[in-house]
Order: sequence, then structure tokens, then C-alpha cells
Amino acid sequence: MAIRVIITGGTFDKHYDEIRGSLTFKDSHLPEILAFVRCTVRIELELNQLIDSLDMHISNRLQILESCRRAEEDRIVITHGTDTMAETADVLGKAGLAKTIVLTGAMVPYIFNNSDAVFNLGSAITAVQLLPNGVYIAMNGRVFPWDGVRKDRERGVFEAKGL
Amino acid sequence: MAIRVIITGGTFDKHYDEIRGSLTFKDSHLPEILAFVRCTVRIELELNQLIDSLDMHISNRLQILESCRRAEEDRIVITHGTDTMAETADVLGKAGLAKTIVLTGAMVPYIFNNSDAVFNLGSAITAVQLLPNGVYIAMNGRVFPWDGVRKDRERGVFEAKGL
Amino acid sequence: MAIRVIITGGTFDKHYDEIRGSLTFKDSHLPEILAFVRCTVRIELELNQLIDSLDMHISNRLQILESCRRAEEDRIVITHGTDTMAETADVLGKAGLAKTIVLTGAMVPYIFNNSDAVFNLGSAITAVQLLPNGVYIAMNGRVFPWDGVRKDRERGVFEAKGL
Amino acid sequence: MAIRVIITGGTFDKHYDEIRGSLTFKDSHLPEILAFVRCTVRIELELNQLIDSLDMHISNRLQILESCRRAEEDRIVITHGTDTMAETADVLGKAGLAKTIVLTGAMVPYIFNNSDAVFNLGSAITAVQLLPNGVYIAMNGRVFPWDGVRKDRERGVFEAKGL
Repeated sequence: MAIRVIITGGTFDKHYDEIRGSLTFKDSHLPEILAFVRCTVRIELELNQLIDSLDMHISNRLQILESCRRAEEDRIVITHGTDTMAETADVLGKAGLAKTIVLTGAMVPYIFNNSDAVFNLGSAITAVQLLPNGVYIAMNGRVFPWDGVRKDRERGVFEAKGL
Repeated sequence: MAIRVIITGGTFDKHYDEIRGSLTFKDSHLPEILAFVRCTVRIELELNQLIDSLDMHISNRLQILESCRRAEEDRIVITHGTDTMAETADVLGKAGLAKTIVLTGAMVPYIFNNSDAVFNLGSAITAVQLLPNGVYIAMNGRVFPWDGVRKDRERGVFEAKGL
Repeated sequence: MAIRVIITGGTFDKHYDEIRGSLTFKDSHLPEILAFVRCTVRIELELNQLIDSLDMHISNRLQILESCRRAEEDRIVITHGTDTMAETADVLGKAGLAKTIVLTGAMVPYIFNNSDAVFNLGSAITAVQLLPNGVYIAMNGRVFPWDGVRKDRERGVFEAKGL
Repeated sequence: MAIRVIITGGTFDKHYDEIRGSLTFKDSHLPEILAFVRCTVRIELELNQLIDSLDMHISNRLQILESCRRAEEDRIVITHGTDTMAETADVLGKAGLAKTIVLTGAMVPYIFNNSDAVFNLGSAITAVQLLPNGVYIAMNGRVFPWDGVRKDRERGVFEAKGL
């Protein structure tokens, strides 16, 4: 079995630009992470975009949908900014692909000492192997269906919402 | 839904004793980890023992089985040394409890920079919510049934074995 | 011998606000750092301000000078933003106090995996014990006199400048 | 000015062997550390040996002395196990070289999250530029002369001892 991991950026992959003193994007940390967590599942990494999800337009989300359609694999994990993750999940969910797609991200960039990034990746990579076709969000140790989740922006956590 | 996390030690929770210059046990890091990964699932933590799984006797494994029986929760994650994790899984599997039990651990202690501990925890906490009753091992990004897994001691990874 | 460490913020002590997704200030990490580096020198910690040095006005620098004057200790380390560290060093240098004062900071916040913060702190705490009265900057593994240093903003390092 | 850093191992550079589950030696982390701490001093790295200082014989210490003699640089930092660091300092001190030599090490390996390794390196690299010819130990934020220091093995810290 192979899993495609589609990288789209978000807080997960933020990079610290020390000259400007700000958080930006440079490369993805996924290759390095998958190595030290000793993941033996075959993973295809696709660097799709590196963007803050607050800066996404519908074209960015359709670009992700296109990658999901084109993928050989029918199990896909997408790393994504948390702020509009539910919107991308909605676009993907409505497309009704015959695939299992799990979106995840991080509230704290991987490059920080106490980040949720690696925990969430473990969550998503496991969920995508166990769930039936459909689109899901894996955050905060939970798995949510694409049409039953929202981000509580004030508390910084994801929660179920009525369908 | 609540998950019971039964801590039994293993490499996951090793502690560095700087006076002796060796790896030993002190406390569990689970409370601290669950905090920074922002896990919103209700977790009951049980410190069952802190032992290297190579030092386990059948009594240690029965102590874990007893905790599983007694637990109010029917979803249980067990952190355990990797060397004899499959043996404990076997004891639990044969008991046939009406619960979902997932064992996990780490090849590199949590206290190290590049540890698989947190990834595996994310894996297990997710798996235990998605799997039907039974006993499983979550390691290396995979989920194995209790009676179909072995640890390859030379390569340091878990793999499926014929039943 | 006691050393006073006057905390003024800067990149060293930046904190990640995950709700806003930005770097800000919260508390200082100095207490925690001094503990795990096993520093046995007596340290008095003074939380003077938590500010980006680009936001400093002369009043902020005079507040630091005042703390240096008032200090019982005659050996003082100051953690400070790097962008205008040389300006504060200039204010302190011209005051000509009968004390040894060493300013240091970090290009990458302590909370990041690969930060120079702890190295610089080791540098400064050692330098302040070995140098004669005067004001200095300890960055990049070097020690500079207050009137012979500038920050190269493009390369992000400190270098000697003609007096 | 150039500083020679002579690597001899010790806890500083311990490596975790996950197959055996023990601490051993593999490579030195000095190159990686010097990069991320943004040290602009010219450093010559010499991998002299990788040994636990408890396993050192006089021949190991004479090998270090020989390297110090041969070095082009007259400022030398030596990373060394803490247990018998004072003994090597003694051998070097008695040789009376016209150089400044500072030994340092770590109580907790660099590869651990809360290690004193990087702080001590910052300490030593700074001390070696400020001290007159002689042999010193830089540990716990202090600098000790070679003939006035001992390691308190119970508390795990270095302290001055009467000459």
C-alpha cells in the first residue's frame, strides 16, 4: 500500500527567516520527519504549494483537488494550514472521489520545540489506512468527517459541528 | 468518548541519569506530551509500571491484562517497550476482551531530539478510536493485529508475520 | 560572586502565539535555561522589559541604564534584541559605570530547535566573569567592545567596526 | 584568530544506538552545532578520539597533549568526558605549553532536549579568547584553573579545590 502525502504549507511547515525576524516558507520538513519517525509505509511526497491557508483562493483549493484526482494512490494525506482547512475539506468532500483523504496540519510550526505537527502526522497517516473512502480532518487526536467539522478560532481547536 | 492510556515504560519513557550516565526510568512524559499536542480527546492516564520490556516476566504482562479488564474505558492505548511488545499483545489478544487495545512504544526515547515517540502516540490514539474490538500494535506508521506481528530486532522495525 | 541578568526581550525570548500565528512575548525562558545548563554561578534575574529592540526608544535604553546603576552586582549580562543592541551598548558605554556589562541576544528564538540563544548565553555569562569593567557585546562566539561593533543586518552577524 | 577544537568524545557527543538501546559514539555533533550557533570565529575541528573519559588511559591523555603541541593555533578548546576531565587538565597543565587551552564537556548528551552541551561550548569558545596562556576547565558557567578544580561526582558539578 502506498500513501500520497500532498504538502500545501500552513503552520506545519513554517520556516523562521532570521534576517527579517518573521515566519515564512522555505522547504517542507516532511522528508526529514518521515525519516526519524521510522515510517515503513511507502509514502509518495508531493510538494503542491507552500501557502498560509488564510491566503488561499478557490484556485489553490482546486489545485489540491486536481492533485487528488490525478494521484495513483487512493489514500491521501494533505498537510494544510488550519485556518481554512475545513473549506478545502468541503471542496474535496463535495467532489466525491473514490479515495480516502485525510487533511491535517499544526497549530505550532514543526520547527518549534513543543509542536503538535508530528503527533498530527502520526494521526493522519494512521487514519488514512483505516478509514473508508471519504474526506476527513485529523486534528487534536480526533478524526472528523469533512461535513461535520469547524475550527474554533478562539480556542485554536477543531470540533464537531452539526451537519 | 474516553481513552485510557496505560503506561508501562519502555524506551518511550526512558530518562537520562546524568550522575550515572545511563538511561533509566523516573516519571512518565505522557502528561506533558498530551498537553503540547493539544489532544482534546478525554484521556485517563494510568501509570501501571516503568520497566524495560526485556525485563518483563509473565507477571508484568498479567498486571497489564488486569488493568485492561478493570478499566471503565473500552478503548485503551498501552505504551510499552518494543522488544517484547508482541508478547504482551499475545497475552492480551488471547484474553479476548470486548475492548479495542492498541500497544505502541518508541525506538528512540521521547527525551531525544529525533524520537518516534510522539508520532507513534498520535498513531495509537487515532487507531484506538477507529478499530473494532481487538488487540493491535501501532508502530512505524502501521497497525498490526496482535497475532500477525513481530519485531525485526536487527532492523528495529515491526512487520507483519504469517498467522 | 553574583551576576545580574537583566532581561529585555528581543528575539531570544520570543513566544509563539498559536491563536494569532505570530511571534510575541509572554514570559522569559531564562529561569528554565539556567536550570538545565546547570549553571552554579549565583544569578539574579531581573525582568526589565520584554520588547523588540526595533521598538525601543531612548527611554527604554535609559531604563536599562538605570537598572545597571541600581544593581548591587558589578557584573551584569543583558539579554536584548540584536537589531539595536549596539545602540543600547553605546548608551551604557558612555555612562562609564564601574561595572562589567555584557549584552547578548539571539538571531533565532530560544523556542526553536536550532537556536543560538543558549550558546550566546554561555558566552556572555563567561565573558562577564573574565572581562574588566566596561560594556561589551557577546554574539557569534566573539566579544566586542561597545564602541567597536555593528550588526551587519544583511548577513545577520555582528562584526568589529573601526572606532 | 583561529581556535582549534579538539574533540575527544565524552557525554557531549554520545549517540543513541536504537538497535542496542544504549548510548555509544558515532560521529561528532560539533560541525552541526557550530553552524546553527552562527559562530563567526575561525574554527579548526580535529576529531582526536571518541571515548568515555572513564575508559581513558594515560596514553589517551598524552594523545591529546601531543595534538595540543602540534597545533598551529595557540587557542585550543577540548571537548572531553567530565568524569576524568580534571586528570587530562592536569597532564596538559604540567606540560606548560605557551597556549590557552580550555576543556569542556557535558553532563547530558547534546542529542537530548535539555542538554548543557551547547551552553558549555559557548562558554569555552569565549573563555579561550579571553584567558592568558594556561589550562582551564569551563563547566557550569564557571572557569577553573587546571590545578584548582575537581568534579563532585555525587552532585555532578565542578567546583574549585584548594591548590
